[in-house]
Amino acid sequence: MTTKALTSAAAAALDAELMGTVAGYTLEQLMELAGLSVAQAIYEHWGLPPQKKQVFVIAGPGNNGGDGLVCARHLKLFGYEPIVFFPKRSSKTPFYTNLVKQLEFFNIPVLSNDNQWTRYLDHSSTLCVVDAIFGFSFRPPIREPFGTILSELKTRQETLPIVAVDVPSGWDVDSGPLQHDAIIPRVLVSLTAPKLCSAKCDPAATTHYVGGRFIPQHLAAKYGLPALQYTGCKQILRL
Amino acid sequence: MTTKALTSAAAAALDAELMGTVAGYTLEQLMELAGLSVAQAIYEHWGLPPQKKQVFVIAGPGNNGGDGLVCARHLKLFGYEPIVFFPKRSSKTPFYTNLVKQLEFFNIPVLSNDNQWTRYLDHSSTLCVVDAIFGFSFRPPIREPFGTILSELKTRQETLPIVAVDVPSGWDVDSGPLQHDAIIPRVLVSLTAPKLCSAKCDPAATTHYVGGRFIPQHLAAKYGLPALQYTGCKQILRL
Repeated sequence: MTTKALTSAAAAALDAELMGTVAGYTLEQLMELAGLSVAQAIYEHWGLPPQKKQVFVIAGPGNNGGDGLVCARHLKLFGYEPIVFFPKRSSKTPFYTNLVKQLEFFNIPVLSNDNQWTRYLDHSSTLCVVDAIFGFSFRPPIREPFGTILSELKTRQETLPIVAVDVPSGWDVDSGPLQHDAIIPRVLVSLTAPKLCSAKCDPAATTHYVGGRFIPQHLAAKYGLPALQYTGCKQILRL
Repeated sequence: MTTKALTSAAAAALDAELMGTVAGYTLEQLMELAGLSVAQAIYEHWGLPPQKKQVFVIAGPGNNGGDGLVCARHLKLFGYEPIVFFPKRSSKTPFYTNLVKQLEFFNIPVLSNDNQWTRYLDHSSTLCVVDAIFGFSFRPPIREPFGTILSELKTRQETLPIVAVDVPSGWDVDSGPLQHDAIIPRVLVSLTAPKLCSAKCDPAATTHYVGGRFIPQHLAAKYGLPALQYTGCKQILRL
């Protein structure tokens, strides 16, 4: 059977296989490439408008959040002015501590438990909000503070477009939006391959990119994925 | 004082600072971005000629070799057919073991002590040879088997162009070619910033790129480096 998207279970299995003893990838490598591709999708989509360089990156507690932290650093290198909101910091590995150090070394503000975070969302200077809250391993319910954060993003999404990393946060990874007030991202950047829920995106509302170009063709085939037609050496592909 | 290139001592200091406790980068992250940029420079320079997809990557015993291993994997993803020659494998960290595992997972041949390695150099199918033998910490003399390898490359460099990673191997990092029979790369990919020896490259013979886009402007300024004018979200810049 050939499918063009991964279930949450398949995404988890593929991820485990990439970092297993045969493929030998490290999390650091995959996250660097994933975060780079999200930053490049933002540049590809909007360029660098002189009056709207600010990007607000919201990082969740897991690896989707880590992708967001890496993305923010590359955005800064591209000339944007990222601000990172990282309310539930993972301390399970020293790598997350290092990712935050890197941001601080780049003079990128990293907010922790900041109840006033919405003051950083300025329609006139903020280009987009990066939703790096939950990824392919998300299971409901949405825990606080992320429920409140997503509600706030929802009310602003017409003027502050959302870039979802891999999966729009709050959506079921397989079936899509769980409630009528789910966020609708302006841009979705699937990592490695689209997840099933991406089929619920309206192409008129959401532009879909894929990034995270790091799996060999035989592994894509094993998971029923078509070979993605990346152009040359590019790290992102608009679907 | 503003200089546009790094001495070997400055390159070592900058590298240590990037992976120090303040900046917090890991070797895995930097090497992934460095190797990616070398692969992208090859694509930028030659594209992907249908009849010349083979790239022979020679990896040395240190981090320059690691950049080559990463480069080979990205080349494969871009559609090339890399072959890696890694005669002195580093076993000092598990990361090098992982880099080789990744290549094997991608079905990329990795040769070890192969006295017949030159049989893989076919003028009709090999696009280029990647010299990832020695980097900015090289000190003479050239140890075997690398002396012999470099002599072989020298005799073939007109028809099998060499892509040097960061520093042409065998060159003094500061002063340039040490002997009249030093290799002359067709392409040089400086990582982070040019090293002093790059000034000895004849622009008519060697096209010079810079990659490894991962340092903030304040760190570049600290080392007397100008802000590099990368275009948009690109990871390489032709100088």
